[in-house]
Amino acid sequence: MYIGIDLGGTNIAVGLVDEDGKIIKKDSAPTRRERGYEEIVRDMASLARCVTRESGHSMSEVKAIGIGSPGTVDNSRGMVVYANNLKMDHAPIAAEMRKYFDLPVNLENDANAAAYGEYIATGKNASSFVFMTLGTGVGGGIILDGKIYRGFNGAGAEIGHTTIVMGGKKCSCGRRGCLEMYASVTALKALTEESRKRYPRSLINDWARRRGHVSGRTAFECAKEGDEAARLVKEQYIRSVAVGVCNMINIFQPEIFVIGGGISREGDELLVPIREYVDKNDYNKHMPKTEIRIAKLYNDAGIVGAALAAKREDK
Amino acid sequence: MYIGIDLGGTNIAVGLVDEDGKIIKKDSAPTRRERGYEEIVRDMASLARCVTRESGHSMSEVKAIGIGSPGTVDNSRGMVVYANNLKMDHAPIAAEMRKYFDLPVNLENDANAAAYGEYIATGKNASSFVFMTLGTGVGGGIILDGKIYRGFNGAGAEIGHTTIVMGGKKCSCGRRGCLEMYASVTALKALTEESRKRYPRSLINDWARRRGHVSGRTAFECAKEGDEAARLVKEQYIRSVAVGVCNMINIFQPEIFVIGGGISREGDELLVPIREYVDKNDYNKHMPKTEIRIAKLYNDAGIVGAALAAKREDK
Repeated sequence: MYIGIDLGGTNIAVGLVDEDGKIIKKDSAPTRRERGYEEIVRDMASLARCVTRESGHSMSEVKAIGIGSPGTVDNSRGMVVYANNLKMDHAPIAAEMRKYFDLPVNLENDANAAAYGEYIATGKNASSFVFMTLGTGVGGGIILDGKIYRGFNGAGAEIGHTTIVMGGKKCSCGRRGCLEMYASVTALKALTEESRKRYPRSLINDWARRRGHVSGRTAFECAKEGDEAARLVKEQYIRSVAVGVCNMINIFQPEIFVIGGGISREGDELLVPIREYVDKNDYNKHMPKTEIRIAKLYNDAGIVGAALAAKREDK
Repeated sequence: MYIGIDLGGTNIAVGLVDEDGKIIKKDSAPTRRERGYEEIVRDMASLARCVTRESGHSMSEVKAIGIGSPGTVDNSRGMVVYANNLKMDHAPIAAEMRKYFDLPVNLENDANAAAYGEYIATGKNASSFVFMTLGTGVGGGIILDGKIYRGFNGAGAEIGHTTIVMGGKKCSCGRRGCLEMYASVTALKALTEESRKRYPRSLINDWARRRGHVSGRTAFECAKEGDEAARLVKEQYIRSVAVGVCNMINIFQPEIFVIGGGISREGDELLVPIREYVDKNDYNKHMPKTEIRIAKLYNDAGIVGAALAAKREDK
C-alpha cells in the first residue's frame, strides 16, 4: 500500500491507498501555510502514521509516499520550487519527508497528481489522456503512454493559462484572456453576480438572498427551475469550457478527456453540451473521436493520484 | 539513403536524402490534384527513380521511402484518410507505392513530417519539441521523446485550430477565432490589405501598386522603411503569433520551439518580439525556459522530415 498526500493552501489531506487506488483511510489537518515547510511536513508525517495505525496497518507495509503540491514542482529533485499560496521557495519536501520514513517519496504538481488518479480510475490504460479541472482556477494534467507529461522543466500542462480571448480579462498570471478567466468556478461566480445585478427579478437573486452569496451551483440550479437569466449564465459558462476542451482536443486528440473539479458534479448538465460543441467543432472529422467524461474521484483525486504516481515511480 | 516525398496541393517534391538528412538531389512535378491517387503515386515513383539515377545512385541503396501528405493521415495503415485539397478519400498511398518498390513506406501528415525534419535539424535530441508553421494556414507538429506525437487517432497537433479569440473570425474549420485566422500569412495579407485601404498614403500602397498585390513581406519591408501603418500591421500580426506560441509553451513547456513557414525568413524581425512576449507572459517563472528558434530547413523540411521519419520507422 501507499501513502497519498494532497497538500493544499487550506488543508493537508492524507490517505492510505491500496494497490488498486482505493482509499483505505484518510484524514486531514489545516495547512496553516504561514508556517515553514518543516512543520508542514511534520504534520504530513504524523497524519500518515495516524491513518496507517487507525486502519490496522503498519508503516512497514507502505511501499512509497506520494505528495501532490500546488505551484512549480521539480519532480526529479523532490522540491517545491515555488508555490505562491504556500509561501514555499525551493522547499526540499521529499528530503524532509525522508527524515521521518525510509521510503521512496515522489513529489508531483497537484493537478498532475489528480490527473494521474483520474487516468487510472478510467481503467482504460489510454495511450493519451487529458484532464481539466475547473475550480478556483483551471488546472490540467496530461498523461501520455501512461506517464505524467511535465515538459522539459516540469512546468507544463498549464492549460488554464492559454489565451482564448486575445486582449480579454486580465489574469493573475499577467496575460489577458486566459481560459481560467472564463472557465473557472471563480469566473462562473462572477458571471452569476453580474447577472444578479442585471436581472434583479431573476431567481438568482432569491437564491443568493437566501444563502447570502452565489456559488458555482447557483446558475445550474436556477436554470433547472426555468430561470432565463440563469440559463444564459450557464450557457455562456459552458461555452467557454467547451472552447477550452475543444482546443485541447485539437492539439492532443487524446483517447480520453476528463473534466474534474467541483462543478463536474453537475454531470450531464455540463457534459452533454460540451460533447455537442466538440462533436460539431473538433477539427477531426474522419477518425475516431475522443471520449469526454466527467471525473470519478472528485476531491479524492489528489490523494489517490499522488499515491499511484508514487507507486508508478517505485517500479 | 532514403527517399523523402513532400506531396502538396500544387507540387510533388521528391528528394534523395542521406543518413544525416542532407538532400543529395531533388526534383518536382505538378500534382495535378484532379487525378486519382494512382497516377499521383506513379509520378512520385518516377521522380524517386529520377533523383536517384541522376545523382549517380541506385534504388537498391535506398532503405525506405517517406511521404508527407496534407490532410488526415492514418500512419499505421499508410492511408490518406481525407485530404480536401488533394481530393483523396481513404487513398492507400503506401500500398500503392509498394507496387513500384519493395521498400518500407512511411506516410505522415505533412506538418508532422516537417516538424520531424526541423527537430532533427536542431541537432539537439530535445526531449520535447513543438513546431509551428506559418503559411496559408497555421500547422503544427509535436515531437516527444524523439517520436512524432499524433494523438490516438493520428489527427493531433492541429495547433492552428485552437481558439484565441472566442467569437472571433470565422475559420474554414467551422469554428470562430482560430489561431490560423490571426497568425497565418493569409491573415497577415488580409491585415495588410485593410491597412492599405485605411491609410491610402502609406508606403504599403506604393509597394502594392508597384507589384500589383500585397504579400506576407509587404508590412515587414515597409516597416523597415519607417512606415507607421506597416509597423502597426507587423506588430498586430506578431502579437497574434506570440499569443499562439505562448499558449503552446504553457501547455508543453517544450525544450525547443521552432517557428517555420515562409514568414520565418524574416528572422529576428519576427523572433525577437516573440521571445520578448513569451519571456514576459510565459506561466513558468521559476524553471529553465523554452528555447525559441526559427526553422532551418524552410521548404526542404517536408522532404527531409518525410525521409527521416521513414528512417526512424525503419529501425
